[in-house]
Amino acid sequence: MTKVLIVYFSRTGNTEQMAQYVAEGAKETGGDVTLKKVADTSVDELKAADAVVLGSPTYYGHSSGEMRRFLDKSIKYHGQLEGKVGGAFASAANIGGGNETTVLDLLHALLVHGMIVAGTAEGDHYGPVSIGAPDERVKAQCRALGERVTALAAKVSG
Amino acid sequence: MTKVLIVYFSRTGNTEQMAQYVAEGAKETGGDVTLKKVADTSVDELKAADAVVLGSPTYYGHSSGEMRRFLDKSIKYHGQLEGKVGGAFASAANIGGGNETTVLDLLHALLVHGMIVAGTAEGDHYGPVSIGAPDERVKAQCRALGERVTALAAKVSG
Amino acid sequence: MTKVLIVYFSRTGNTEQMAQYVAEGAKETGGDVTLKKVADTSVDELKAADAVVLGSPTYYGHSSGEMRRFLDKSIKYHGQLEGKVGGAFASAANIGGGNETTVLDLLHALLVHGMIVAGTAEGDHYGPVSIGAPDERVKAQCRALGERVTALAAKVSG
Amino acid sequence: MTKVLIVYFSRTGNTEQMAQYVAEGAKETGGDVTLKKVADTSVDELKAADAVVLGSPTYYGHSSGEMRRFLDKSIKYHGQLEGKVGGAFASAANIGGGNETTVLDLLHALLVHGMIVAGTAEGDHYGPVSIGAPDERVKAQCRALGERVTALAAKVSG
Repeated sequence: MTKVLIVYFSRTGNTEQMAQYVAEGAKETGGDVTLKKVADTSVDELKAADAVVLGSPTYYGHSSGEMRRFLDKSIKYHGQLEGKVGGAFASAANIGGGNETTVLDLLHALLVHGMIVAGTAEGDHYGPVSIGAPDERVKAQCRALGERVTALAAKVSG
Repeated sequence: MTKVLIVYFSRTGNTEQMAQYVAEGAKETGGDVTLKKVADTSVDELKAADAVVLGSPTYYGHSSGEMRRFLDKSIKYHGQLEGKVGGAFASAANIGGGNETTVLDLLHALLVHGMIVAGTAEGDHYGPVSIGAPDERVKAQCRALGERVTALAAKVSG
Repeated sequence: MTKVLIVYFSRTGNTEQMAQYVAEGAKETGGDVTLKKVADTSVDELKAADAVVLGSPTYYGHSSGEMRRFLDKSIKYHGQLEGKVGGAFASAANIGGGNETTVLDLLHALLVHGMIVAGTAEGDHYGPVSIGAPDERVKAQCRALGERVTALAAKVSG
Repeated sequence: MTKVLIVYFSRTGNTEQMAQYVAEGAKETGGDVTLKKVADTSVDELKAADAVVLGSPTYYGHSSGEMRRFLDKSIKYHGQLEGKVGGAFASAANIGGGNETTVLDLLHALLVHGMIVAGTAEGDHYGPVSIGAPDERVKAQCRALGERVTALAAKVSG
């Protein structure tokens, strides 16, 4: 089974809700899903995953300090994550409030690890963004991300 | 009077409407405003302006080819636009659809020219983004951009 | 055979040289390579490709107007390029001169099309960048991009 | 006197050296400079500054977790930093290694605070980047940033 690790930081619960939707999409696509807060996640868990999806609220245009610190520590496995599949999502307080730059902040980190990321032609192209609490649109985008990442990881790691 | 040049590309009229709101804000702050479609604008007009504001729809995550070609041609005045004030806005079909990366595409070009750009702590931090036709939120953000840019240019060029 | 389409804009020849190195890497990995200037390329050619690699000099922080116009026209096949593999490279006049934002400009467009992009843990993480004429480092990075893209496209489209 | 606060994170000393060059440029332009490691800086110090310059090494395409955490905490003064002048610089291990995305990571945060940032037409357009230890080019770019930021802050806050 394709191992999908979803790591998120959430303060208000919005990003956590998004993470759960991503997990649903991943499970329905046959993923063996681990869903964890970044505070409870060790970078050691990155190695076993076929796909890694990161989510964060938007803090000053980027992911939270906790998430960045986790990424800093992931240097322990630099070079060993190449070829894994990655994805990212973000919540924000308002439109134009840094949601895309937060998704890209996370995608950049995955690319620096040599990981593979896929956009989508419909909807939130770089990765799902929620303005405030996730609505039906966000739910669909998050589930689609979970499906996309899992299907791609199955193909790439198979 | 502070000369504010607003240059935009618009196909559906959404970005044009945003440009008009930016112009309103600039005028009310005492700006001498020139509002033009990019197709009707010569890069020669950049030199006389104290502030330059650019607007575009989101095409594949960035401003339109017409806007980029205009920026390519602006190399004619490379180095001569340093210290002018700049700003940018973008329309997009959907949330997460590349609106922020389009605003930043335009801001990057202004920064490469050595221009000065100001964010805002409230609302659309990098510059106004509209999802579809501009609503009241977008109107307020665009007017605020016009005010911000004009007031800053008056201070900087004064 | 994996069909790899490499499309570039080049004025001084630096980006063209990079494109040729990418082509070498792709061919050695078994790719059926088409190498074309953007002016000679129809967006119709995107459909047949398994992988699309784009290259441009850095003009005001992003790819050239010609390249952006090509991407604008690629909307003809919006949604039909999903799942193809993409990559990007850029040349620039100097370090800190917008080379990374140009690579990302191109990657964003590929992600908006729903394409798949892979970073690298070693070297130019988002895609190869050359400062002036390509040196040995750039040559190696470009060849590695050609190899990476071709191998991934073979896996994904196979 | 124009108060310039330079805050940096440095592990190897490269970013610290850059910070010192920025400080030199700021001092020679009449700035009252405070140069501090981020670990020794309270967000309370942001309020008194006329200009804030941030520097960080490149960790996975962005500034370090320590710097991001400092920015997270700066929310205490959200809205109160509007109109101040900002700037950013970054060091990285290699060309194409995320140096520009790190500078932009920091600039985004300053823009979200409603601060004012200026690019430069010559050299490192968004902000100085060093590949490894700072050389003469980097020294000149850093000093120019210090000068630019101080002169602009004097004008804007005067």
